[in-house]
Amino acid sequence: MSFEELVFDVFARNCTSRPVMDTVASRWGILSLVALQDGTHRFNELRRRVDGVSEKMLSQTLHALERDGLVLRTVQSTIPPRVEYSLTDAGRRIATKLTELIELLEASMPDISVAQARYDEAR
Amino acid sequence: MSFEELVFDVFARNCTSRPVMDTVASRWGILSLVALQDGTHRFNELRRRVDGVSEKMLSQTLHALERDGLVLRTVQSTIPPRVEYSLTDAGRRIATKLTELIELLEASMPDISVAQARYDEAR
Repeated sequence: MSFEELVFDVFARNCTSRPVMDTVASRWGILSLVALQDGTHRFNELRRRVDGVSEKMLSQTLHALERDGLVLRTVQSTIPPRVEYSLTDAGRRIATKLTELIELLEASMPDISVAQARYDEAR
Repeated sequence: MSFEELVFDVFARNCTSRPVMDTVASRWGILSLVALQDGTHRFNELRRRVDGVSEKMLSQTLHALERDGLVLRTVQSTIPPRVEYSLTDAGRRIATKLTELIELLEASMPDISVAQARYDEAR
């Protein structure tokens, strides 16, 4: 059976799409993918852009995204080696959707902030 | 200063949009919002649909989404009280975008599975 014949469903507990969703939709997964939309970046550039991420978390996130085939890691054999990260085609499609999601979230924040204040006042 | 004048940016470490993104894009946040797209549900209905979620995690997720003004919790004064959850307008907009994201993810899973297998073989 090839992968094409499988049905993937994030609602099913054991579906392999769930850990992928966890990586892609994690705080650092979203921000890394969206940050790579404007082109290739080195690790430290990404780290500055993804404000607050630790070296360890960014490294883990990029490895998981590389394993999923969403991020490409290229090493140039200079001294010291130059390591760069970019999006694959699949990564670009997902990053585009994530950008739409965070733009919608940011645009919703005035309403969300009002709701939060009202909720907290009532308690 | 009103909330409308604030600029929200999930890339900024201390922006209040970050914890909202964490809730909305968490595994249980995504699945709860998407599950509520087809209408009002009681807690146990949601728990069956969101396969694998614990009572505690679903409860925490729904409370956070209610605080953000994305989910509406209504209590009918029957005996026992009937508690129901539904999406607000803002919740519906975000759930629609999340549905697009998980549909894209599920459709990408054949390619992602191939990439994962290749990555694991090379190590």
